[in-house]
Amino acid sequence: MKHRIIPAIMSGGAGTRLWPTSTDAQPKQFHALTEARSLFAETVARVSGETDALSFAKPIVLCASRHKSWVEAQLTEIDASPSAIVYEPVARNTAAVAAVAAALSAEIDSDALVLLLPADHFIADREGFHATLARAAPLARERIVTLGIDPTRPETGYGYIKNGAALSDGVFAIDSFREKPKREVAEQYLAEGGYSWNAGIFFFHPRTMLEEFFANADIRDHALAALAAAHRNGREIHLDSEHFARARSMPFDIAVMEHTSKGAVAPCAVGWADVGAWDEIWRLATKDGRGNATHGEVVVLDGSNNLLRGEGVKVCVSGLNDLIVIATPEAVIVVPRDRAQDVKQLRELALKPR
Amino acid sequence: MKHRIIPAIMSGGAGTRLWPTSTDAQPKQFHALTEARSLFAETVARVSGETDALSFAKPIVLCASRHKSWVEAQLTEIDASPSAIVYEPVARNTAAVAAVAAALSAEIDSDALVLLLPADHFIADREGFHATLARAAPLARERIVTLGIDPTRPETGYGYIKNGAALSDGVFAIDSFREKPKREVAEQYLAEGGYSWNAGIFFFHPRTMLEEFFANADIRDHALAALAAAHRNGREIHLDSEHFARARSMPFDIAVMEHTSKGAVAPCAVGWADVGAWDEIWRLATKDGRGNATHGEVVVLDGSNNLLRGEGVKVCVSGLNDLIVIATPEAVIVVPRDRAQDVKQLRELALKPR
Repeated sequence: MKHRIIPAIMSGGAGTRLWPTSTDAQPKQFHALTEARSLFAETVARVSGETDALSFAKPIVLCASRHKSWVEAQLTEIDASPSAIVYEPVARNTAAVAAVAAALSAEIDSDALVLLLPADHFIADREGFHATLARAAPLARERIVTLGIDPTRPETGYGYIKNGAALSDGVFAIDSFREKPKREVAEQYLAEGGYSWNAGIFFFHPRTMLEEFFANADIRDHALAALAAAHRNGREIHLDSEHFARARSMPFDIAVMEHTSKGAVAPCAVGWADVGAWDEIWRLATKDGRGNATHGEVVVLDGSNNLLRGEGVKVCVSGLNDLIVIATPEAVIVVPRDRAQDVKQLRELALKPR
Repeated sequence: MKHRIIPAIMSGGAGTRLWPTSTDAQPKQFHALTEARSLFAETVARVSGETDALSFAKPIVLCASRHKSWVEAQLTEIDASPSAIVYEPVARNTAAVAAVAAALSAEIDSDALVLLLPADHFIADREGFHATLARAAPLARERIVTLGIDPTRPETGYGYIKNGAALSDGVFAIDSFREKPKREVAEQYLAEGGYSWNAGIFFFHPRTMLEEFFANADIRDHALAALAAAHRNGREIHLDSEHFARARSMPFDIAVMEHTSKGAVAPCAVGWADVGAWDEIWRLATKDGRGNATHGEVVVLDGSNNLLRGEGVKVCVSGLNDLIVIATPEAVIVVPRDRAQDVKQLRELALKPR
């Protein structure tokens, strides 16, 4: 018997480090950054169809009200038909959204498992991803299983999860969550083994998950009140803004995972990336013989290992290496690949009213 | 008695190495590149008014027909009123244009001298420039005096003029014209002394100049036929396109200066620059404490000695030195300062139909 899974796709990211492509009006998940289709479209495609062990139901999509037209257009483009699209009138981080997703999922099919995942990740190995879900599914009926990514480098930008006792083949209890570590600590985790990156992908039965909100029950209750009072129009669900605004803004990790005793982690190595900054886009991109990754109308006279992206703008470079050039008709950023993190601050300075 | 001078301003440059700012529709002379006003406007201003020795008459402006609106708008902006604006229906290089300028000048004031100069040069020392003209004026009644620029570096991108015998204080006969030299040869010229850059600025009486067209009289004759058959409308003179098209396309230097025995050179050091490429714009620009020259909306997190120009586009850079970034809503170029010459080829590749 296959595990029935309702994917709940959270499409609320901002992507400020991917400016000027990613903007408030069209954030990163609605752009084609790593593949031919947008991150959102790839995510929807990744959790659809059937495998030997899994049967994906129509997804629930959760997004900001102002991104309605992007969601609709991109769903149409890939011919996907969600069972519900939940519009968030204000941003309230992932805890409140997760509660809505769980309650709505139980309403659609009370026996199905929920796979809660962000719309802006990249996963190279889709089969490995599905195999991890199949392995974790039995435990996901009782526990909240988080996918743990096998660390491939001493990354200081992610939280880590330390494995506890083995619960089943390849699934572990959670010993502890570890905040973004310093470099030396990250290196130690890597050397020691038994640590995963916390990717923010959760797999659970909705009843369990909603019960485990006990430490921050008010967030769940306001979120569910917003769902109960929502304006529904076919598959469209517009959350009630007064109720939803009352839900405290908190990540699901903090609100639930750090309190529950029912957490579990399923470590996996599936070519995951959170597509956070431009240097990562370069790492993930297909490159030419000189290591240049290009998008749009680009002319390279010479130079190597550059990320060059023109969106309706011709990008012309010569004699440069290891550079990031992103050009839109509104703004251009030029930074060395190892300074990709500076984009967030450049964006703030550029958009600051004068 | 003051020397009466009719400036004849040739505004026909293309500025392909200053793409994407300089375009066919709005070439470099109509852009503010080195000062607050455009090169064209600065040139008009440079040859107006009176000095102790000189009296500038209203100029003659010569430009491509398709740049009519730029010329008119920028003349209005600086409140300048030329005696004639000559529109060239096709581009025929400077010999034909010079002949038209000379004939038209004689028609306006047969006794005045003509100062023929390109609209796209920069001259830092206006008083020195006027002093050079005052010194050269007596000889300019008999000869075609070319302004020679004292070389400040072993430039291989310009032609050189070797001084002949002194004709008067600071004016020499021309020993010979020298093509753009190789680096070692340019260094030798600099060490030896007595060489000037050929800036393409000519000072003469129109009758003399038109006579000295003897080696290429057909160019002059077709040009003057185009003027005779021109459509005139107030100060506007639209050259006859059939006649003008018949004039062979040749630079004035080649058509006249290399044949005449009446050439002379007036060397000067007036902070001249031909504003040919972006590295030169950086050299001429006002810079901040880190050596960055910026234009438009620019954000620099750190980095030094860059030329950063945004035209209706925000330009944001971090961690880069000695770079040129020029951004318009159509195209962006990013090249090291010492690769500014590559822009011409980048432009060709970018504009090539696919």
